[in-house]
Amino acid sequence: MKLYGYFRSSASYRVRIALALKGLEYDYLPVHLVRKEHLEPAYAELTPTRLVPTLTDGEASIAQSLAIIEYLEETHPLPPLLPADARGRARVRSLALDVACEIHPLNNLRVLRYLVHELGVGEEAKMGWYRHWVEGGLEAVERQLARDAATGRFCHGDAPTLADCVLVPQIFNAQRFDCRLGHLPTVMRVFDECMRLPAFDGAQPARCPDAE
Amino acid sequence: MKLYGYFRSSASYRVRIALALKGLEYDYLPVHLVRKEHLEPAYAELTPTRLVPTLTDGEASIAQSLAIIEYLEETHPLPPLLPADARGRARVRSLALDVACEIHPLNNLRVLRYLVHELGVGEEAKMGWYRHWVEGGLEAVERQLARDAATGRFCHGDAPTLADCVLVPQIFNAQRFDCRLGHLPTVMRVFDECMRLPAFDGAQPARCPDAE
Repeated sequence: MKLYGYFRSSASYRVRIALALKGLEYDYLPVHLVRKEHLEPAYAELTPTRLVPTLTDGEASIAQSLAIIEYLEETHPLPPLLPADARGRARVRSLALDVACEIHPLNNLRVLRYLVHELGVGEEAKMGWYRHWVEGGLEAVERQLARDAATGRFCHGDAPTLADCVLVPQIFNAQRFDCRLGHLPTVMRVFDECMRLPAFDGAQPARCPDAE
Repeated sequence: MKLYGYFRSSASYRVRIALALKGLEYDYLPVHLVRKEHLEPAYAELTPTRLVPTLTDGEASIAQSLAIIEYLEETHPLPPLLPADARGRARVRSLALDVACEIHPLNNLRVLRYLVHELGVGEEAKMGWYRHWVEGGLEAVERQLARDAATGRFCHGDAPTLADCVLVPQIFNAQRFDCRLGHLPTVMRVFDECMRLPAFDGAQPARCPDAE
């Protein structure tokens, strides 16, 4: 398998964690987003949406980090990243989507660029936007985790799942942009628990071959 | 089952389509977003993220439209909304996420409100923002669909899938905000095909009990 990604892309980091948790070998192919390598014809041919990450597996080329992780779960079921019961699976997917749909899309590079270049938003207001969605979105995740007995050492029970694969990279982004995290005791406890595992630690942005 | 939703919420519409395709009965409970009913304590208790839709099934309460549809797929497998093969399932999920993560989160009500009230963005620039993400995002979906032999009458083959459940409500939003659609021949062919089916047509916003 080949993973096309970028060290700082949190969607790429999600997939690196999942691959590591499942103990899968892969070739890592950096696509430099700031240098706009994702818009070059070779990458656009591979992935018409021109986003990272992309996973190739034989002739299959799969985009979207959550679709990639579901694919890995179906093709390499052990260790599982989703619980066995439908209700638990729904809870884990829902937590993952709370980050992947409600927080991350508002704060990626192209959105921040649009705010600045098209809407003329200043640096301070841009950072306010970033923190607003991260801090509020993570607060919603905190409410979910704090009230529910299904939360364990990790987001769901005592083994890492898809939800942790998505949550941890979002915390990295939050820290990088100096977001408040003090109101998130359960989220940060889970984050610390994850970071003790080599799969999460070894896949972090600073340890990627393309890290700057 | 009970579905808490709002007629104009495209995430709610996705779930209404899936329920209809699977022929499932449910109680429809409107949550008026413009009147901020989703922020009232009773709904926040049910769904800590305070978003629509929420599906309850016995004691289970599930948020996030894609997690709900995956839950329905697991608990009521027929007719299937995902293909049988892992590669096909990945393609369908990826297309669904191309809309659910790259287009819709940028254009929902709370984001538009933030642009206007916090960033002082004017009406014209707000509409420009809306159309930019919809038109560009759908163009990426068009490229995916147009080039791939797996595209059939619908997004994937000749039966509707999760990808169609997510695509169709996005087209409704695009039409409502006068977005360009002429550059999307494959997307619009699939849309027209979907709208011939009672499951898509009967679940559309104008046919909801809370439609205005």
